[in-house]
Formats: sequence, C-alpha cells, structure tokens
Amino acid sequence: MTKTLTISIILSWMTLTGLFAQDLQKTNTFDIRNFGARPNDGKDDTRAVGKVMKLIKKQGGGRLVFPKGRYDFYPAFADEFYFHISNNDEGLKRVTFSMRGIDNLTIDGNGSLFMFHGFLNPFILDGSSNIRLENFAIDFSRSFHSEAIITADPEEGLDVRIKEGFPYKVKDGMLLFTDGGKNEGPQTTVSKENIYGSNHMLEFDTKRQETAYMVKDFYFSTINGYPAKQLKDGTVRILVPRLKGTVGNTMVFGPNHRKYPAFVLSDCSDVHFSTVTLHHAGGMGILGQRTHNVVIDNCKVTPSKGRILSTTADATHFVNGTGKIVLSNNIFENQKDDATNIHGIYVQVSSVDDDEVTVRLVHRQQHGFDFLKPGTKVELVRGKSMITYATVTVATVDKINKEYSIIRFKEGLPKGVRINDAIAEVRDYPEVTIVNNIIRKNRARGMLLNCRGKTIVDNNYFHSPGAAILFEGDAFYWYEQGGVRDCRISNNVFDNCLYGVWGKAVIDVKAGIKEDLNKSRYNRNILIENNTFRIYDEGTLLNLYCVDNLVWRDNTVEYTKEYPPRKRKFERFQVQHCDNVTIEKFED
Amino acid sequence: MTKTLTISIILSWMTLTGLFAQDLQKTNTFDIRNFGARPNDGKDDTRAVGKVMKLIKKQGGGRLVFPKGRYDFYPAFADEFYFHISNNDEGLKRVTFSMRGIDNLTIDGNGSLFMFHGFLNPFILDGSSNIRLENFAIDFSRSFHSEAIITADPEEGLDVRIKEGFPYKVKDGMLLFTDGGKNEGPQTTVSKENIYGSNHMLEFDTKRQETAYMVKDFYFSTINGYPAKQLKDGTVRILVPRLKGTVGNTMVFGPNHRKYPAFVLSDCSDVHFSTVTLHHAGGMGILGQRTHNVVIDNCKVTPSKGRILSTTADATHFVNGTGKIVLSNNIFENQKDDATNIHGIYVQVSSVDDDEVTVRLVHRQQHGFDFLKPGTKVELVRGKSMITYATVTVATVDKINKEYSIIRFKEGLPKGVRINDAIAEVRDYPEVTIVNNIIRKNRARGMLLNCRGKTIVDNNYFHSPGAAILFEGDAFYWYEQGGVRDCRISNNVFDNCLYGVWGKAVIDVKAGIKEDLNKSRYNRNILIENNTFRIYDEGTLLNLYCVDNLVWRDNTVEYTKEYPPRKRKFERFQVQHCDNVTIEKFED
Repeated sequence: MTKTLTISIILSWMTLTGLFAQDLQKTNTFDIRNFGARPNDGKDDTRAVGKVMKLIKKQGGGRLVFPKGRYDFYPAFADEFYFHISNNDEGLKRVTFSMRGIDNLTIDGNGSLFMFHGFLNPFILDGSSNIRLENFAIDFSRSFHSEAIITADPEEGLDVRIKEGFPYKVKDGMLLFTDGGKNEGPQTTVSKENIYGSNHMLEFDTKRQETAYMVKDFYFSTINGYPAKQLKDGTVRILVPRLKGTVGNTMVFGPNHRKYPAFVLSDCSDVHFSTVTLHHAGGMGILGQRTHNVVIDNCKVTPSKGRILSTTADATHFVNGTGKIVLSNNIFENQKDDATNIHGIYVQVSSVDDDEVTVRLVHRQQHGFDFLKPGTKVELVRGKSMITYATVTVATVDKINKEYSIIRFKEGLPKGVRINDAIAEVRDYPEVTIVNNIIRKNRARGMLLNCRGKTIVDNNYFHSPGAAILFEGDAFYWYEQGGVRDCRISNNVFDNCLYGVWGKAVIDVKAGIKEDLNKSRYNRNILIENNTFRIYDEGTLLNLYCVDNLVWRDNTVEYTKEYPPRKRKFERFQVQHCDNVTIEKFED
Repeated sequence: MTKTLTISIILSWMTLTGLFAQDLQKTNTFDIRNFGARPNDGKDDTRAVGKVMKLIKKQGGGRLVFPKGRYDFYPAFADEFYFHISNNDEGLKRVTFSMRGIDNLTIDGNGSLFMFHGFLNPFILDGSSNIRLENFAIDFSRSFHSEAIITADPEEGLDVRIKEGFPYKVKDGMLLFTDGGKNEGPQTTVSKENIYGSNHMLEFDTKRQETAYMVKDFYFSTINGYPAKQLKDGTVRILVPRLKGTVGNTMVFGPNHRKYPAFVLSDCSDVHFSTVTLHHAGGMGILGQRTHNVVIDNCKVTPSKGRILSTTADATHFVNGTGKIVLSNNIFENQKDDATNIHGIYVQVSSVDDDEVTVRLVHRQQHGFDFLKPGTKVELVRGKSMITYATVTVATVDKINKEYSIIRFKEGLPKGVRINDAIAEVRDYPEVTIVNNIIRKNRARGMLLNCRGKTIVDNNYFHSPGAAILFEGDAFYWYEQGGVRDCRISNNVFDNCLYGVWGKAVIDVKAGIKEDLNKSRYNRNILIENNTFRIYDEGTLLNLYCVDNLVWRDNTVEYTKEYPPRKRKFERFQVQHCDNVTIEKFED
C-alpha cells in the first residue's frame, strides 16, 4: 500500500517533467552524426558534441540523438574551465558534455556506449534546467583505479599480478600506474601527466566480487605509487611490510584524487536520468550540488567486464539540494563508496569581530562551495553540541578565497557567536524518495540520510559491508549538515550487511556531538517498519545516538550462514542519549 | 667607451621612469603599519597587504612603505585566482602581493625581509604599469627543494643526512619531504597538501658551493618522493641503485613543480626592480610575460644562510616581451637554472582546414599563453627548417582550451601551410641590455639570448657550469622562438665555465634546425669582442650552427687549473652550416 502510493507519486512527477522534454523532441531534434560524429569509428567525437551544444544553447533546447554505437571522447578538444565540485576534487577541467546554461535538453543515447579516454570530465551541467539523460552507458578505456590479483604474502610486503587493462611500470624502485602510452620518461618540465596516481588500497573477495570480509582500507603516505620490485615471474612485490592480503583476492589500488566524477549537476533544476549505465568514474558517479529536483530512475552503477570496481567514490551524492531527490529502480554496485549521501554543508567560524564573522570551508573538497549569499537564511550552530542557537539572514559576503569569507547578517551578529561554531543554509530541504533500488558489494555504507526534508526509504535491497543506512553530521571533520526530521525506512531487505568495518549497526544513527548530550537531539522522527534483516551473526541492528522520537516496529530477522560470525558480542540495540525511542514487537 | 655609453643610456631611461614614481611618493604614501601589519611580530601580515592594495588601486597609485623589519605571510587570507605563468606551472594561486590592474606604485621595503610560509605566490603583477619594487628581500621559511649531505654510497642506493630546515618523513618505505607540521597522516579525502614533492636530484660540491664537477641531473619517475629506509644513525638510505654521489657533497632534491615563482609580471609595462634580494622561489625568480620595459638593477638572487640553492629554476626569464629589458649590476647565483632566458613562443599547427588552422601550445608550461589575438602580426615558420615563409595578421581566434585554438588570418591562409609548422608573434622585439652582472654557481647556463631586438651583453662575469651564453630556438621540444639579429657580447669575463654538462661551448649558438641546413640561418649578426676566457682545459669556446655573420675579435684566453681537464679533446671553434663567420686575431 505504502509502496504503491510512493511510486505513483514519483511517476506523476516524472511524467510532469517529461512533458516539457516531449514538446522539445517534436520541434528540435539533433542527430550527432550531422555534427561530424560517427559511431564505432574509433575517432574523437568531442568536437561534434561541442558544436551541437553551442547550437542547442542558442536554440533554447532540443533533443540530441546518438544512433546506437560506440562514441569515443578524448581531452584534446574538450571544453575547459575551473570548477569546484563538492566532495570531489576541484580543478581546471576538460569537459566533454559541457552544459552550462543549457535548458530543455534531452540526450538520448539509444543504448550507445560513451567511451572516455584519459583525464576528462564526462558531463558537467552548470546552471542548466529541464535536462533528461537517457539510454547510454559511460566508461573509461583506462580506469582511474587499478586492480591486481594477490599471489603471495611474504614478510617484506605483498606480491600481486596486475590485471590486464591496468598498465604500470616498476622503475627506480617504484610501482606506478600509467596510461600505457610511450610518454613514460623522466618527469621534466615538458613531460605530460600520464601517471594514474594511487595512495590507498582495498582488498576485494574475487569470488564474491565484493570487499573482502572485514578488510580495512590501507592508506599510504606514498601519494602516487608504491615502493616495489618487479619479480621474474611477472608479478610485482610491493615493499610495504604492513601490507597484508589473501592469495587469490583482488587488490584495488584507489586513485589519489576524485577529479573526474561522471556527472556533475551544479545549480541546476529538474534533471532526470533514465536507463543510464555508469561503468566508471574517477570520483563520484552523480554529484548534485545546489540543485533542485533530481530523478535517477532505472539506472545502473556497475563495473564493466574484467573490472571488480565501478566508480571510485560514491555512486550518487547530493549537497545543499532542494526540491525533490528521487532514486528509484536503480542498481548501485561495486562502487568504492556509499550509494548515496544527501546532506548540507557547514562553514566554521574562524574569527569573530564587531559585527562580522570570518568563516571557513574547512574540508578541502568543500572549498569554493559558495552557498552564502546576500539573502541566504542560515542557522548558527554550536560546534560541539550541534545545537542551533540562532537563525539569521546573510547581508554581505566578502569572499577572500575559496576557503575564507567575511560575513555580516541583516539582524547583526547574534550574541554569543564563538570561534568553531558552524553555519549552514536553512533551505527548502529536499523531499527524498529512495525506492526499489539494489545496493550491493560496494565499499562502506549503503545510504547516508542527512536531509531534513521528508525522507522515504522503501522496498530497497541492501547488501553493504558497512551500515546499510547511516545518519550523521558534524562540525569538526566532515562538516556535513544532517539531522533528519521525518524519515521512514520500510519494506527493505537488509541482506547480510556489516561484513566489513564501516559501521556499528545495520541502521546507524550518529552525530558528531560532544557537548550537551542531555539536550542535543540531532536526528528526529524516524520510523523503521516492515523491514527484513538477514544477518550472519548477533550484530547490532540499530545504533542510536542523540535521537528524538524513533519507532521500530514489525521488522523481521532471519539468520544466515553467509559469513563467519564475529568473535565480539554485540548488543542488538544500542541507545545512547535519546528520547522517545520505541522498539515494538521485536521478536529475535 | 662602449660600456660608458651603454650605462648612460640605461640610466637616462631609468631616470625617466623614476620620475613618475617620484611624483606619486609626494602625494600618496601608505605605511603598511596603518593597515594592521607589525614588523617582527611573527603574525600574518597578508590582510594588511590586501587592504592597502585595494586602496592603492582605488587611488590610482602611491608609495607603499614597509618600515624595516621582518614581515610574515601565510596562504590563509591571500588573494586567489587561476593563472597561467609561462615556463612555470599554472594553477589556482594564493597570492600575497596581488597586483592586478595597479598602476604607479612604488613598494619600498627599507631593507625588510618578507618571509613567506607554505604554498604561496609572493608577487603577481597582472596588467599593471609603472611599478617600482625596492629595498626588500624575499624568502620562504620552508624551501620547495630540500638538501642533504651525502654520507655513503652503498650498492643499493645512496645514504644522506638531511640538513636541518628540510623536514621529512620515512614511512611505508618512502622518503617524503614535509612542512614539518603535524598533518602527516594518511592522505584521505580531507587531508591537506603538506608534502614538498620531489622528482629529481642534483649534486652540489659542498666546499665550492656550486654544482659538482660534471655531475648530471638525476630525473626520477617517482614524482613525489623516493623509496628509502631510515637508518639507525639518523641518515636515510635512498633505495635507487643507479643513484651515485660523492661523500661530503650536498644532494639537492628538486621540487616536482614550478608553482611558486617569486615575481610574475604579466601584460605589464615599466616595472623596475632595485635592491631586491631573492633568496628563494618554488620556480623562477622573476618571470615576465607579454611585458613592456623591465629593469632589474642592483638586485641579488642568492640563497639564505644554511642553503646551497636559491630559486629552484631560472633567476629571470622573459617571454614575448617588448620595449626594453635591462639587467644591470645584479648578482645571480646558485639558482637551479639559467640566469636569464629571453624568447618568444611558437604554437604548432596541428591541423589545416579550408581557411583556418588549428594551433596548439605544446609545451605544458606554455599552455594558456594567449598571445594570438585579432590584429596580432605573426610569422609562419617551417617546423623543421625554422625558415619563416610568410608573415600575416590574425583575423579571428576561437579558443578551444588552454592548448588548442582555431585561427584565421586577414590575408587568408598562406599557401603551403603544413601540419607541424610553427607560428610566433612578430612584435616590437625588446632591446636587451645585460651589463655589469655576476652570474655564478647556478645549474645549467648563464644567459639564453633568443631575442631579435638589439642585444648587448657587456662587462659581465660568468662562472656557469654549462654554456655561459646559449642561443637556441626550436619548434619541436621547447617551442621557444629565438634568432638574434643584432647582438654584441663584449668585455665579459668567462671564468672557468663548462665545468658541468649543460653545453658544448662557452658561447653556444644553436637552433633546432633539421632541414634546409644550407639555407636556414637562424641567428644572425653577432659580435664577440674584448672578452676574457679563463679556461681549465682545451674546451670549445664557440660553437656555431646555422649562423649568418658572426665576428670574433680581440678576445683573450687565460689558462687555469681550477678543474681537472676533461679526457676528451675538443675543437676550439666548431662551425657548421654558417655564412660569413670571421674569427679575428685569435691567439691561443
């Protein structure tokens, strides 16, 4: 009943936005072949996209059609601009589908494959509205991560056989991943970037095609590569003694950046993804920032053949969004981080003067995230208690650089503003609808729910190594604004989650609160009902910290033998500093 | 006589530009203390500079005075913008003295020290005119390079004791140089840049304080650091077997970038440096691009106490300049590249269509060097012969990105334009006056003379490990436009140059010509007279390739025992593919 209702609401809204696009299709259809592209010819189709985008922008929209086939895109003739992308890496980007200020556009791939080559951002939508992206797949010929099979685990490090398709060199005692091209001489003033830098590793279970049972991330300070030697049998010995692994498993070498997310939506509205497949990205799959209304329906994040990893970070991620966010009927698998995270951003007060505060975007992947503007309504929050103590409106912003700004408020500076307080936007928090998705075999968590709009998580399948659902928010490390106000988690299957180290419970409600624990209630009004928890040991189903009003009812537990049980004993429910928590009808 | 004349010309021009500044001094003096800076208090003075610059810009100029003392500058509150800096590294820069569109300004340091901390660009002048920089020194608290004393040369690599003031860590089998701060954990998505990356080394003679006799650059593909282990006696063993060195000598670890040149002059005019001391920069000392009239007088590039290296690249460097370039009465020592290089830039023709060419800035440190504009007069040059075959005027420029543009000409496309041809600006080539300078103990060459304006090199002292004077220009590697037309080298002392590997002759006239050797004469009209060559073996004094009209007269040779003679025999004069070469009155 609930499920049917939810879906019908989504469908009606999808139809509504779909109507605009349909009008356009009739009037203004562009065939990419008319701009110089040819499917399956192996040649660079970048200029064709540049030309057609120029025309579409001029004409106010249209329907761009790619006849079915493979299209190739290289960086040489791509558009270029500097861009700050939240939770990914800023930089001067080469962008193939550079959609800035483009409205009313449908791109229909007819099942085509868009193959990207090199250091390239596939899609950046900036200030665009009413966009539909349909029927295509994205991949990179050389992934930003690399993969290897573990062949031995000697004292001095780890031996691996690097898989086909992940070129590398061992030179001057270093393992470096490359593009396989010829430009591999010394790094002089004229040499070009051709290194696929890596600074962390994660072991995957080759048979299960998921992160190895209880494996931890190996983070290194090596930045670009690893001390290593080439062995005679074609394997490589990585000379880091603390590195351990299981022979036969797959070691994934993570990239040292998140520079190349597949889709960036920035200050956009009404963006609709349908039957889009995302095989890879050097960063997140879909990143929406300050964007209104996004639907991702019937899409897939999944690795292409021969790879164990899809995107190198979250499948989807939304920052300071408004309107609606819908994730429906998707598969998110094997990405190197969460399936989604929907949150706001805090700046930190770094100094307080007469009538102004200097604020700082501290997390380096939030630099340049300019959400404070004259007229922006904001909450002032105590850094340690996370309690909102004032709500005011921004009057002036003097931006010093991507990190620091000086802010004045219309109401003047509220009393008691302190260094290390946090400030976030009070906005039209999005309604979040997450239904009928499959989330599995990725690193870390399933969903991070950190949105104050009505949030529905219904009828999804989770098989995540960490918490299936995590609530958080803090003002000292991630600087992510969260705190649900109306959240329903219903009819989901949590299938043997927590086989990894990323979370305390299948549903983990946390918050970075260090003070006023008796007062601060960051996440509120959560209903968890009619879910099935398939578990392989006596792990924690629900962890609660500083929560107000939570109901747990009609949930079922099934026992499996999918993984070896952990030795530690856990409490089934952990509740700390909460009010109004009801655990109903629970039969273990 | 010649010398006196030269100097009086310079002085009269210096006085002329000085007059403007004098007027300003009377009317508009700013004391930096009035903007919040305090000498010697150790606090960040960046905001004071930001404030005063804003006011100076508003008021149309002035005289900014720093009372004598030490001023400290950090990146936190520095201005920020993306900038392309020729022959250095582009990027989003934090800039302390951010001088964009500022005119008629004198900065007088009264002998102050400006101490920069971290990843910071000290001065960028962009579109500024009539600027005088006087009486201060620049240094960085942590240099971008690092230094170590070689303690042993074992089979498996090289042992070094890293000098005080160059913090480092050895972790996970890697030597990495750091800022010495606490933020040295794993590189996660929130960690900050604190690594002083290095990818090449050069050995210096600790006693002589100059590059070791005949030493070569070690370039590595390691990018950020080196495989290494910490030894118990406090030394570090770098585990690269091909790395060799002499015990007691100093190994200099060069940075993997040129991001932080000390002074950048971009599209400026009339910039005058006087009694400025440059102890360090993470890149070049002074880089002038598309700039009209620059005087550098009575300045020093020299390392600060305890360091063997000053700037990590050229002391000065000028690209597509116009007007006059004067280097007089300076000391340029211990910088990690040439004392100067004065040249133009070629783009390469990458494709030819009906009436347009697509051109490319190939050298990655020339990307974004936008000199082609409607109205720009250009020469079209054969890539392999370097022969100019047409001169036309740019009509339109469609910039694709920092690398590629599409160009049309007013006259239409000249016949016979081919892929790999080169295009450079035909401009008011600067008059170059280089007098009374001391150039010594740096890496590589003394001066690179690649300018078609009248060029005078008079009464300088050279002690450079490579060629003292090099002429070059090519369209396949450096893409630097050269080719002197009127050059006099007189009254200089060349004191035991060529003790290193960077050059074939004390005066080396080359060009990247591979075709039409019987016709192409790239450098023309060179007079070399009244110079003294102090030499330690029978090396080549003059190497000539594709030169027309050169006179060598009244030069003196003195023999020394400063270095061990090389085993190879050399020709005293090497002349290939030249016309009208006269070697007069040479007594060996």
